[in-house]
Amino acid sequence: MTWTNPLRDERDKRLPRIAGPCSLVIFGVTGDLSRKKLMPAIYDLANRGLLPPGFALTGFARRDWAAEDFGKIVYEAVKQHARTPFRQEVWDRLAEGFRFVPGSFDDDEAFDRLAQTVRELDAQRGTNGNHAFYLSIPPSAFPVVCKQLARSGLAASDGEHWRRVVIEKPFGHDLKSAIELNAIVNDVFPEDAVFRIDHYLGKETVQNILAMRFANQLFEPIWNSHYVDHVQITMAEDIGLGGRAGYYDGIGAARDVIQNHLLQLLAFTAMEEPTSFSAAELRTEKIKVLNATRLVGPLDETTARGQYLGGWQGGEWVPGLKEEEGFNPESKTETYAAITLEVDTRRWAGVPFFLRTGKRLGRRVTEVAVIFKRAPHLPFDATMTEELGQNALVVRVQPDEGITMRFGSKVPGSQMEVRDVTMDFGYGTSFTESSPEAYERLILDVLLGEPSLFPVNAEVERSWEILDPVIEHWAKQEQGPDPYPAGSWGPESANRMLARTGRAWRRP
Amino acid sequence: MTWTNPLRDERDKRLPRIAGPCSLVIFGVTGDLSRKKLMPAIYDLANRGLLPPGFALTGFARRDWAAEDFGKIVYEAVKQHARTPFRQEVWDRLAEGFRFVPGSFDDDEAFDRLAQTVRELDAQRGTNGNHAFYLSIPPSAFPVVCKQLARSGLAASDGEHWRRVVIEKPFGHDLKSAIELNAIVNDVFPEDAVFRIDHYLGKETVQNILAMRFANQLFEPIWNSHYVDHVQITMAEDIGLGGRAGYYDGIGAARDVIQNHLLQLLAFTAMEEPTSFSAAELRTEKIKVLNATRLVGPLDETTARGQYLGGWQGGEWVPGLKEEEGFNPESKTETYAAITLEVDTRRWAGVPFFLRTGKRLGRRVTEVAVIFKRAPHLPFDATMTEELGQNALVVRVQPDEGITMRFGSKVPGSQMEVRDVTMDFGYGTSFTESSPEAYERLILDVLLGEPSLFPVNAEVERSWEILDPVIEHWAKQEQGPDPYPAGSWGPESANRMLARTGRAWRRP
Repeated sequence: MTWTNPLRDERDKRLPRIAGPCSLVIFGVTGDLSRKKLMPAIYDLANRGLLPPGFALTGFARRDWAAEDFGKIVYEAVKQHARTPFRQEVWDRLAEGFRFVPGSFDDDEAFDRLAQTVRELDAQRGTNGNHAFYLSIPPSAFPVVCKQLARSGLAASDGEHWRRVVIEKPFGHDLKSAIELNAIVNDVFPEDAVFRIDHYLGKETVQNILAMRFANQLFEPIWNSHYVDHVQITMAEDIGLGGRAGYYDGIGAARDVIQNHLLQLLAFTAMEEPTSFSAAELRTEKIKVLNATRLVGPLDETTARGQYLGGWQGGEWVPGLKEEEGFNPESKTETYAAITLEVDTRRWAGVPFFLRTGKRLGRRVTEVAVIFKRAPHLPFDATMTEELGQNALVVRVQPDEGITMRFGSKVPGSQMEVRDVTMDFGYGTSFTESSPEAYERLILDVLLGEPSLFPVNAEVERSWEILDPVIEHWAKQEQGPDPYPAGSWGPESANRMLARTGRAWRRP
Repeated sequence: MTWTNPLRDERDKRLPRIAGPCSLVIFGVTGDLSRKKLMPAIYDLANRGLLPPGFALTGFARRDWAAEDFGKIVYEAVKQHARTPFRQEVWDRLAEGFRFVPGSFDDDEAFDRLAQTVRELDAQRGTNGNHAFYLSIPPSAFPVVCKQLARSGLAASDGEHWRRVVIEKPFGHDLKSAIELNAIVNDVFPEDAVFRIDHYLGKETVQNILAMRFANQLFEPIWNSHYVDHVQITMAEDIGLGGRAGYYDGIGAARDVIQNHLLQLLAFTAMEEPTSFSAAELRTEKIKVLNATRLVGPLDETTARGQYLGGWQGGEWVPGLKEEEGFNPESKTETYAAITLEVDTRRWAGVPFFLRTGKRLGRRVTEVAVIFKRAPHLPFDATMTEELGQNALVVRVQPDEGITMRFGSKVPGSQMEVRDVTMDFGYGTSFTESSPEAYERLILDVLLGEPSLFPVNAEVERSWEILDPVIEHWAKQEQGPDPYPAGSWGPESANRMLARTGRAWRRP
C-alpha cells in the first residue's frame, strides 16, 4: 500500500512531495558514489523536509564498523558535499535512523542480520515495512545480492508494503548481457519494483526539454524535419580516467555514456508528445522513439572513436590514457565515441542525430543542439549574410544550465548585414529556486514510487540493440581508436564523419 | 547622375556607404529638431567618414545671423548632442562648408540669395549641383517654401544632378489634407525626389524586425494566425506636453503617433516577405499589407482615448494636460489613443492587432509584442501550469533595444510545474558596433538617394484612410477623452477594450 501524504490532494500537486515512512539500505556504502552523491542527497532531502520523520538509512559493507563509525562517514560526506546548509537539528534527527551491518555479499548470516535490523527499524522508527535497496555495487555482484535479498526475505513485498531495488549503470555491456542481468533482477524483483538510475534524467535541464517542448507554442511547430537540419548531442568531459582506469578498460565511451545518457537525451529530444506525463505514457513514447532509432552506415564513415594522448589542458600537461596508472598499455578501449543515428518517424525522417562523448576534451559540457535549416530564401544581398550561420536552439544541460537560441540579427550601422547573435535563458538568473541535485530528485522518486524518470528494461535493451553493431564493428577493425591530444575536441575522424555530410561539430 | 563611390562594388556591399558630393539646406534651422537631431547627426556622419570631403550645410531662417553665428549654434548642438566623440579636425573641415542665409519664406530675394549661395558652393566645395532641402518647418509653410524653391530654380534637377526634398510629419491631418499636401510637394518635386521622414524607420530595432523575420528559419513558420493569438504595438512616453501644448492641441495621439510610427511598425511586423530588400519591393509589400489592414468595430468598444490628469510620476507630482501652460482648458485632444485592427490576409485573418500610444504613461517604452496562442494541449496537471502565460516574442524598439522571448520552463525542484521565463537578446551586449541614431541613417540615405526607409504617398494616404473613421467617430462623441492619472497605463476604457476579447495589455 502506498502511503498517501495527507498534505497532497489532486487540487494542489504543487505542494512538496514528501516520502512516506520507509528505510533505505545501501550496498557499497563505502564507495565514491555513496559518499559524494547518495549521502549528501539524503541529507539535502531531509533538510528540505521531504523525508518522513522516522526515515532510516542502513549501510552494508565489508567493514568492521560500529554504527558510530558509519555515522561519522556520513557526517563527513554531508559536510563536504551537501548542497544545502548544515543544520544540526536536521542532522541529529536523521542520524538517529542510521544503522550499519557489516558483512560480505556471500555471507548468509550477514544478510540475516540485515533482515533483523530492517525489521527492528520497522518497529523502532515506524518505517512500516517499506524498504528500498540501493545496489551501489559492480553489476557482477548483482546476482548474489539479489539472491541474498530473496533468501533472507527482504525482497518480497507482503502486498501491503513496498520493496524496491535501485540499480546503477552499467546495465550490462551489450544486449545479451543486459537481458541476462534483467532476468536476474526480475527473478527477485518485479519490473515495477526496479528503479534503474540514469542520473541524467534527474537533471532539471533534461526534464525541462519536455517542459520546453510541450508547455509552449513556440518550439513544437519547428521541431521536425521541415525545419531541423540535424541534431548534435554532446557530453564532453575535461577529466581523464585517473583512478577509474581499471573499471573503464574494456568498457569505453560508447558503452559508458552513449548507451545510457546520450540515447536518453535523444529520446527526450525526439519523442512525440505523451498525452500526459504519467510514467506509463512517458515510457511508451520513449520506447516508441528508441524503436524508431537506427544507426546510419557505413559505420567506417558514420562513427568515430578515439583515445586521448597526453596534451595541454588548462595550462597543465596531462598524461595520455596509456600513461594513466593501472591502464593496460595495449588497450583498444575508446575514450571518445561518436555515432550517427536517424529516427524513422514522420517527424524526423532524414534528420541525422550526431551523438558524441569523450574524456579529456576541451571543456566539460553536456548539451543538446538542434540545428535548423537555413531559411529557404534570403532576400538579402549574398555579401550581407556571410556571417550568418544556421539557427540553433541549444539546451545547456551542464554546466551553466539554460537554453541558448542562435539567430541572425541586423548589424547596427550597416545597410542590411546580418550576423549571428544569441538569446539566453539561464536557470541561475531566472529562478530563485535552486536546482536540486539529480540524486535528490531520483532518490525521492524511488521512495515515492514515482517511476517516470527511470528507464525500463525495454529501453535499456533497445539502447544496446542500437549500439551493439558499432561496438562489434569496432572490435573487428585491426587498428585501434584514433589518437587525439588531451584538450582537443576529439580525433580527426570525428570531424570527417560530419564533414562528409557537409556539416561540422559545434565548438560548445 | 548618381555619384558612385569608387570603394563600393557589387562584390562588397558591406563596405561603408559614403555619400557623394552634395549639399544640404535646412529650413527651420533654429528649431529643436534641427539642433537636437539634425546637426548632431550630420557631425556624427562626418566623424564616421560617411560625408564627402566638400559637404556643405546651409541654414535658412529669419535671423540676423552671420555665418559665424550659425557655426556657433551648430557647434553647441554638436557638443551637446553628438553621439560620437568630438574631433577638432573633423569639425574644422565640416565647418568650412557652413553657410547661412537670413530671410523669411515669403521673401523672394532671400531665396535668390539662397540660390546664389548654393551655386557658389557648387564651385567652391564641389557639391556638384546635388542638393537636398530639409523642410524642418510646420506643414503650413510647405506650399510657400516649395513654390520658392521652384521659382528660384533650386528645385529643378538638370537631369544630371539631383535635387531632393525631405519632409517631416505630420503629413497632413487626415486623408484629404494629406492628398492636398502631397499634391503641393509633387507639383515641385517628383515623387522619387521626396523623402518623408518617419524616424522610427531609421531605428536599428525596427529594421531588425525584417532581418529577424526573413534571415532566420526560426520565426517565420510561427508568424501567422495558426500560432499567433494577437499583436500589441505600444509607444508609451513618460513625458507630458510641456512646451509643445500649442502644436499638439487639435492633433492628438492618434494623428501624432498611430498614423505614422505605429502603422509603420505594423507594416514591418505583418508584411509578406519581399523577394529582395530593394526599395520598390519593400514598399510594394508595405502598401499591400496596409491595404489589407482595416479597423475593427464597433469603435465605441474597440478604440479608447484618454487625456492625462495630474499624478505622481517618478516620485514627483506632474500637472495634468489642462494645467499645462498654453493649453486650452476646454480641449478634447487625446493624449492616449488605442485602436483595434485586423489584417485581411491568409497569414493574419482573425488575429487582432492592438495599437496604443500615450503621454505621461508609466514608463517610456516602444515595443512590438507578438503574443502566441497557448499550446493546443498541455500534457501537464492543470495545477502545474497556473503560472504559465502565453508565449510572447517582444521586439524592444526603445529603450533597452533588443528582443525578449517569453516561454514556459520547468520550475527547479518541482515535479513538473511550469512557469514563464524569458530569454533575452540585447543590442548593447551582442554587438561591438554601436547603433547610429535614426537621423544619421536617414540623412545618409537621403544623400545617397536610398529610398527604402521613407514612406511613399500611397502609404501615408492609406494610413489616414485607416485612421480617419476613428477620429471622425471620436469627434462625434459628446464626452471627451477618458481621464487617466499621469504615471498610469491609460484610461480604464483601454483596459475594457482588450478585456472584451478576453485579453489584457502587457505591462511593458
